[in-house]
Amino acid sequence: MKIAIQGEPGSFSHEAALKLVPGATIVPTSLSADVFAAVSDGSVDAAVIPIENSLAGSVLEHFDLLLNHDVQVERETLLRIRHNLIGMPGTTVEDIGRVFSHPVALAQCRRFLAEHPDMESFAYYDTAGSVKQLMELRDRHAGGIASAAAAKYYGAQILAADIEDNPENYTRFFQIRRTSEATADPEANKISIAFSVENRPGSLVAALSELSRLGTNLTKIESRPVHGKPWEYIFYVDCQLRERAEADRAVAVLKPHCAMVKSLGCYGEARQ
Amino acid sequence: MKIAIQGEPGSFSHEAALKLVPGATIVPTSLSADVFAAVSDGSVDAAVIPIENSLAGSVLEHFDLLLNHDVQVERETLLRIRHNLIGMPGTTVEDIGRVFSHPVALAQCRRFLAEHPDMESFAYYDTAGSVKQLMELRDRHAGGIASAAAAKYYGAQILAADIEDNPENYTRFFQIRRTSEATADPEANKISIAFSVENRPGSLVAALSELSRLGTNLTKIESRPVHGKPWEYIFYVDCQLRERAEADRAVAVLKPHCAMVKSLGCYGEARQ
Repeated sequence: MKIAIQGEPGSFSHEAALKLVPGATIVPTSLSADVFAAVSDGSVDAAVIPIENSLAGSVLEHFDLLLNHDVQVERETLLRIRHNLIGMPGTTVEDIGRVFSHPVALAQCRRFLAEHPDMESFAYYDTAGSVKQLMELRDRHAGGIASAAAAKYYGAQILAADIEDNPENYTRFFQIRRTSEATADPEANKISIAFSVENRPGSLVAALSELSRLGTNLTKIESRPVHGKPWEYIFYVDCQLRERAEADRAVAVLKPHCAMVKSLGCYGEARQ
Repeated sequence: MKIAIQGEPGSFSHEAALKLVPGATIVPTSLSADVFAAVSDGSVDAAVIPIENSLAGSVLEHFDLLLNHDVQVERETLLRIRHNLIGMPGTTVEDIGRVFSHPVALAQCRRFLAEHPDMESFAYYDTAGSVKQLMELRDRHAGGIASAAAAKYYGAQILAADIEDNPENYTRFFQIRRTSEATADPEANKISIAFSVENRPGSLVAALSELSRLGTNLTKIESRPVHGKPWEYIFYVDCQLRERAEADRAVAVLKPHCAMVKSLGCYGEARQ
């Protein structure tokens, strides 16, 4: 099974994809938009994308892309995020003068970086990519912040392990597929829905109250701007379902209150 | 009046600050956290911060900072965002090989950049800062994407005007002050509130329904993760008020449903 991920081999998305589909062939892709395009045009079977981190919050671009592509969320999984300072084999923490990583990873290792004031931080497009780069350049003074899997993949060395400030660091990933090929999980107990409400007072609360009356439990809500309509929003909600059939009812009760409703997919809730 | 902004002189925040307080002394500051610190410690009288763009969405970091500092939102304003390609005086569009700007500005000028495939894009920390840099380096092959005010401030030249993809591009700014010095606007018709709900099914909808029953109109909702408590959220809502006194009632009706409630401020709604 070919699975597209955003980022380089050895990234957390790579790890999540193998957790969901052991033995999958991973197709690393630079841009999230291209990941969705690869799913849409059938050049991959599925994609695994991060949707939310327990510290940094939602990956908002992925909500926009989920809405605008004919794909469905089939499964979710959680990954404990452990960051490591990684360098060339044979180097030590003291050798490192410049540290490269994704801005979110740098932000999650503030304490370690503050304790090492000689290290200058640089934003890089990818966690695993920072390790790939220092190995390609054979740069003994550069460090990357990435997963243990990245160190292993590129033959680099972990110089300092588990350097994240907060151990309660989890990322939630979705596995997505073309709508026409997505299989319905009869055990699904969660649904993600995108909707926009009619532009009149009270319509958002009225829509949410309908979900509440149904007995579904709203676990998350996000809003994203509607392009070209300033201060109108698309809302993204996650609801726990007591049974699979509740999913269709949830979409149905929203419709009278909404200008647009789209189910992004039903799936089984991941546990830590 | 001394007003801190995040970013360089000539930035959109600079423009918004002067729109709110003509003649203000602007204190440019690199990091948003330092802007809030300057307000808190009294080294400036106020700050003007972007909170939301009609295309890119919310500036989530600023929600976190509003919650964690003893400040209040006093006023809001809207600014129409017009992006320009800016270069050294005497250069033309054809001279430009590298374009620097804030990632959000680059993303908002995708069409222009696609029409000029010879230009390579580079993320920079600030729109106005990209113009400052090319003028300091006297780099005739570098362009910045920034406001007309930035071109004027640094003595640079607009090579292509209004290059944004979507003209419905507005940014909403807050003026904030220390809570002890914020003046209550008796004409305020809007409130921003942060709250976290008790961790039980239905509590978010119950809390929002209380606001609805009061007759306030919920215009916006955002969620941010609670650090150290995966999958728990702080919600940020904006409500329209029919009268100033409704603000206190809104906070009061939320309390029984919430683990935490904080009014971020009452202010008059800005119009386009």
